[in-house]
Amino acid sequence: MKRLFTSIVMMSAMATAAFAQQAIFNQNKVTSPVLNTNGTVTFNLYAPFAHEVKVTGDFLPKQTIESPMGKWEIDGIEALKRDENGLWSFTTTGQLDPELYMYKFQVDGVDVLDPSSIHRSRDVRMNMSNFIVTREAGDRGDLYSAHNGTPHGDIHQLWYDSPTLKTTRRLSVYTPASYRTSKEKLPVLYLLHGMGGDETAWLELGRTAQILDNLIAAGKCKPMIVVMTNGHVENNAAPGVDGPLTLVEGGITNPEAVPQRATPHLEPLAVKNDGRGSGFPESFPDVQKFIEKNFRIKKGAANTAICGLSMGGYHSFMISQLYPKNFGYVGLFSAAISMSGGQQSTYDLLTSDKNYKKRIGKLFSAQPKLYWIGIGATDFLYEQNKDYRHWLDEQGFPYEYRETEGGHIWRNWRIYLTEFTQKLF
Amino acid sequence: MKRLFTSIVMMSAMATAAFAQQAIFNQNKVTSPVLNTNGTVTFNLYAPFAHEVKVTGDFLPKQTIESPMGKWEIDGIEALKRDENGLWSFTTTGQLDPELYMYKFQVDGVDVLDPSSIHRSRDVRMNMSNFIVTREAGDRGDLYSAHNGTPHGDIHQLWYDSPTLKTTRRLSVYTPASYRTSKEKLPVLYLLHGMGGDETAWLELGRTAQILDNLIAAGKCKPMIVVMTNGHVENNAAPGVDGPLTLVEGGITNPEAVPQRATPHLEPLAVKNDGRGSGFPESFPDVQKFIEKNFRIKKGAANTAICGLSMGGYHSFMISQLYPKNFGYVGLFSAAISMSGGQQSTYDLLTSDKNYKKRIGKLFSAQPKLYWIGIGATDFLYEQNKDYRHWLDEQGFPYEYRETEGGHIWRNWRIYLTEFTQKLF
Repeated sequence: MKRLFTSIVMMSAMATAAFAQQAIFNQNKVTSPVLNTNGTVTFNLYAPFAHEVKVTGDFLPKQTIESPMGKWEIDGIEALKRDENGLWSFTTTGQLDPELYMYKFQVDGVDVLDPSSIHRSRDVRMNMSNFIVTREAGDRGDLYSAHNGTPHGDIHQLWYDSPTLKTTRRLSVYTPASYRTSKEKLPVLYLLHGMGGDETAWLELGRTAQILDNLIAAGKCKPMIVVMTNGHVENNAAPGVDGPLTLVEGGITNPEAVPQRATPHLEPLAVKNDGRGSGFPESFPDVQKFIEKNFRIKKGAANTAICGLSMGGYHSFMISQLYPKNFGYVGLFSAAISMSGGQQSTYDLLTSDKNYKKRIGKLFSAQPKLYWIGIGATDFLYEQNKDYRHWLDEQGFPYEYRETEGGHIWRNWRIYLTEFTQKLF
Repeated sequence: MKRLFTSIVMMSAMATAAFAQQAIFNQNKVTSPVLNTNGTVTFNLYAPFAHEVKVTGDFLPKQTIESPMGKWEIDGIEALKRDENGLWSFTTTGQLDPELYMYKFQVDGVDVLDPSSIHRSRDVRMNMSNFIVTREAGDRGDLYSAHNGTPHGDIHQLWYDSPTLKTTRRLSVYTPASYRTSKEKLPVLYLLHGMGGDETAWLELGRTAQILDNLIAAGKCKPMIVVMTNGHVENNAAPGVDGPLTLVEGGITNPEAVPQRATPHLEPLAVKNDGRGSGFPESFPDVQKFIEKNFRIKKGAANTAICGLSMGGYHSFMISQLYPKNFGYVGLFSAAISMSGGQQSTYDLLTSDKNYKKRIGKLFSAQPKLYWIGIGATDFLYEQNKDYRHWLDEQGFPYEYRETEGGHIWRNWRIYLTEFTQKLF
């Protein structure tokens, strides 16, 4: 049997790979990343024919660079050193805090996933390797991990009709472990992604299922259904998962545009396709109708929350105004408040267009239980959110405010989800 | 607004990438792959600092190589040519047949996904870019694509208790579009992955949801529930999706072993962990019990099918013997019949251990409606399946046999799924 077993493993390794490459790789038994006993982390890549290997990721201190639009924060980047056998390595200078980290190699200038790790996250066009550091129960790395013995909720990927958009679209739903074992109706959180994401982003990068499983098991948040939509009206579904991948003459979507997406509509859309999710807020009643029909939920504003990050924060800002009686809880995570505006400041936008005062006034007159704003101190949307808070203060509309370190990053959005869900229902 | 919009797109691009890299990439507007008007396909990679770029994938003719175990078929590999700006290209010599193809680049010896394509498939440790070629309605590429206007089934990812394994495990379930709109009970197909896979393999690489959606919509197969388990008892769930990614001292799983997996059990397993899915067949009643409890299904052998590829073919071979009254339809796709055996031939294994005759005899005495065997003519498991057919012939046990071109590849397994499902229920 040993021979057969070996041959199946080898076939598995060779099925889609060049044999020599894999054989060399396996001979060298590369492990990466490695958590060292002193708490540092080492990254290894076997690349004997490469001339330069670097690693970049959010585990490294941010760098500030100059761009045509001003200063930007980007992930740090470090060179790996080659040993005499062609193994390249880099070790962090200090311990890493408990967290989910993203990284990738650059081999002679080209992005490469870590071939020694199976842990990868997709954010539409970007693929990153990832790893979690955890030191003790309850720390952030622990919260983002699945645990044996903790009841796990289920994930559903469903298609719904959107008469408003005149098409069928996909969404993801998290139902907590108790949903299948009890007959109880549950409240609903609508959780919206950013411009780079789709209906899988909050699951892959946001660790929504793990956070909810762990918070619910610890009694820190109420069991709830979480609905993750796809706010890009120009796409039916997340790329690759369900899309027609058919090549068309002249090649697939030009990558210079908004991050590429799959599952394009074959029929003309009923709304303008601008890559910013315009038209999605107006179609939101289709989502709510679908969820109310297909899941055992508690209805009404007291049992309904909406929140989202960046573009999804803008969507939450708009949807809660358009349907002010539907939501008792609203969360804006690093929200692009001015997304539909022009060159003017957010404050000028809000004061010059009286619709905002009228609609947001209606929302606050219904006395929502929570209007929550979270943003990082170095987020490029900080000023927009400052303007918005200033405007809300002037109107006398009450909200909760949370400011964290750092910028427009998933680390913050996982923190906001963790805090926001504990305040719901 | 244009300025804000641009800045969000740029932030999105830069969030986890080095700025210079992305800026160069975007300036060059690389599109890849490109279907040319003459039906050839061009692959492009912008890599000005690379010294050698190759492409490998199943769209190229297979190569035969010598290995310590004899001759093996592997994917072809071709060199890309660099232009004066650092853009590397390769164009196929002929048209490609309608199909889902997998490919990757090798940059100075290191595997690289196509950064210009968002279409990617994961098979545990391997990530490949992919594309579908289709020419007309009903061809293979068309069958593997999602279509607007075709009713789409739902995907569920659920955790179930396995008292036999003393743990909680995850599985995927496809429910057809009619499942939510009617109250009808449906038959069940259990669909098992190979040694390199997990509960997502048949969805990602097998295109199960698209194939079933399209066949059902065309009236070519009955609406059915499809259950995709994880046959590796040493893991709870697919890597990354739900696992604790915690690093442990000394690094994560050594990659020289069976392809790495995540979500390891924290508690000792009730069965031996050998990386071959041993112990899974004995735990299968836990799966059936869970499905019968949580889905609206028709019970009994006439409404229950099981099939699987490679290791999953072995599992189907074993599970159908262990529980002969449970399955009216059995499908072995490129099955590793001898997986539990020793060095002896499959024929000798089946004749020397009388349990096979006894158990398989029980299965056939219940007169299953279909016992189906499919294998590629150059599959490395061909002899095993030939031996098994010989043995079945001697016993007088009836089966259907399907032989295709090629070897131990997903292209064949998608064909087998397409043909097998049309014979069910």
